[in-house]
Amino acid sequence: MNNDQQNTDLSRRDLLITSGKVAAAAAIASLGVFQAAKKADAYQNPSAALFKYAKLDPNEVGQITYENYFKRWCTSSVIAGFVEPLKKKVGGSWNEFPTDAYRWSHGGFAGWGALCGTLPGAGVIIGLVTKDTDIAEAMTNDLAFYYSYTDLPSFTPAKVIKANLKHMSMAGTPVCHISVGKWMKAENVAFLSDQRAERCARLAANVAMEATAMLNAYADGVFKPKHKPLYNVIANGITSQNNCSECHGQNPPSPKEIYESLDK
Amino acid sequence: MNNDQQNTDLSRRDLLITSGKVAAAAAIASLGVFQAAKKADAYQNPSAALFKYAKLDPNEVGQITYENYFKRWCTSSVIAGFVEPLKKKVGGSWNEFPTDAYRWSHGGFAGWGALCGTLPGAGVIIGLVTKDTDIAEAMTNDLAFYYSYTDLPSFTPAKVIKANLKHMSMAGTPVCHISVGKWMKAENVAFLSDQRAERCARLAANVAMEATAMLNAYADGVFKPKHKPLYNVIANGITSQNNCSECHGQNPPSPKEIYESLDK
Repeated sequence: MNNDQQNTDLSRRDLLITSGKVAAAAAIASLGVFQAAKKADAYQNPSAALFKYAKLDPNEVGQITYENYFKRWCTSSVIAGFVEPLKKKVGGSWNEFPTDAYRWSHGGFAGWGALCGTLPGAGVIIGLVTKDTDIAEAMTNDLAFYYSYTDLPSFTPAKVIKANLKHMSMAGTPVCHISVGKWMKAENVAFLSDQRAERCARLAANVAMEATAMLNAYADGVFKPKHKPLYNVIANGITSQNNCSECHGQNPPSPKEIYESLDK
Repeated sequence: MNNDQQNTDLSRRDLLITSGKVAAAAAIASLGVFQAAKKADAYQNPSAALFKYAKLDPNEVGQITYENYFKRWCTSSVIAGFVEPLKKKVGGSWNEFPTDAYRWSHGGFAGWGALCGTLPGAGVIIGLVTKDTDIAEAMTNDLAFYYSYTDLPSFTPAKVIKANLKHMSMAGTPVCHISVGKWMKAENVAFLSDQRAERCARLAANVAMEATAMLNAYADGVFKPKHKPLYNVIANGITSQNNCSECHGQNPPSPKEIYESLDK
C-alpha cells in the first residue's frame, strides 16, 4: 500500500487520466450510448411535497452529524444532521422520520466496505426533497466527486469527542474500505480505534455540509451540477470510479479496447 | 482480468481463505474489539408500525422487480418489487411510498460502481419493516453473503424483455463494478448492451426474492441469521469483503500484521 503522500499523488494522477478520457467519452457518446445510458424514465418525485426542505446552516448540520456518529454510525448520522433541524424548521413528515431505519448502510453495507455510508445518508435526504430523479442524480454524482477528490476530514468539531487527529487523506473513490484504509495508513491506527471513529464522524460531517450547500443552492433555485451525470459510465464503459490503476495496475482496460474486444 | 471460470475459482478460494480467518477473528475478539465494534446503540424502529409487512410471494416480487428495472434501474426496481404488492396487501403508508426517491443509488451510487444498487434497494425495505437495527443488520449482512457467493442471475422471467443470456457469474463481492465486470467478461458484452441490462434486471429479481424469503421468515417469527453480523470487520480488521486478493494480489495484509504494525 502507498503512504498518504503517494495516495494523494495517485488520486491526482487518476484525476488527470480521467480528464484525458474526455475524448474517448465523446467518441462513445457519438455512438449513441450516452442516450442509451439515459433511457430510464425521468421521474417527478411526490415525496418532495411531503418532505419539504428549508435552507439549513451547514455548520449546524455538520455538528449534529458529528455528534450523532458515535451512537448511529455513518449513514444515519448524516440523516440525523438534516432531520433534527428540519423537525424544528419544517416539522410535518420530518417529525416521524425513521433515521435509524437506514443504519444497515453503515461501513459500506453492514460493514462490507463497499459504498461509504455517508454518501447514501445524504442521498436519502437529497432523493426525498428534490423534485425529480435527474436533480438527485446530479447532486449525488457531484457529492461522489467531492468525496473522492477532497482531502478529508477537514471538519473541526465544536468540542472533540473521541480523539485529536493528525491527518487528512484523499480517497480517490467513494469506496469505504479504500477510503478508510488510506486514512488509517496515514494516521497509523487500527479500524477499531478512537481515532478512526473520530475520522469517520468528521468525514460524515463534511459530506453532510457539502450536501447542505447543494440543497441550499437548490432551495434558492441556483443549483448547478459541477460534473456531468453518468460521466464515469461513459468515460470508462462501465459503472466505475476513476481510480482504475489502484486495482487494475498500470494498464487498466480502456473503453476503446473493451468495445473492440467484443465478439460482435 | 480472469475469465469466468477463474473468477469463480477465485471467489471460492477467497471464501476458503475467509474460513481460515476465524482463528484470527477469535483472537481479535478476545481483545475486546468485537465489543467495540458493537457499541452503536441498538435502536427500536418506529417505522415498523407505519410500514407493516405482509408475507409476499417471492416469485411475484421477483417478476415485478424484473419488469421495473427497465424504467427504474436497480435500486428502485427492487423497492417497487415490494411496494407494489404491499400496496395491495397492506396499503396505508405504502400507497404513497416514494419508490424513485432512491434511484440515485443505481449503478453503485449514481453510476460510480461502488455498492450494487440491488442491495440497498432491499435494505430500504428491510430497514423500514423490521423492528430494530440488529435484525436489519443481520438480514443485510446475509444478503451480501448471498449476493457475493451465488452464481447469478438465476431468475427466469415469465417473458424475456431484452435478451436471452448465456452465463451466470459469482461476484465474490457486493461491489457493482467488479460484479458486473465479471459477468460482462463471461458473456462478452458491453455495459450499454441489452444483455447487460437484462442481467441486472434478473439479478435485481434474485436479490428481491432472497430478501422476500428473509422477511417472510421474519413475519413467521423464524428468521435466523446465517452469518455473524460484522464478521468481515472482525476477520479482516477493517470494513471489507473477502475477495482480498483481487485487488491486493497474493499477499493481502492480515489483521495480525495490521495490528502488529501499528506504532503504539
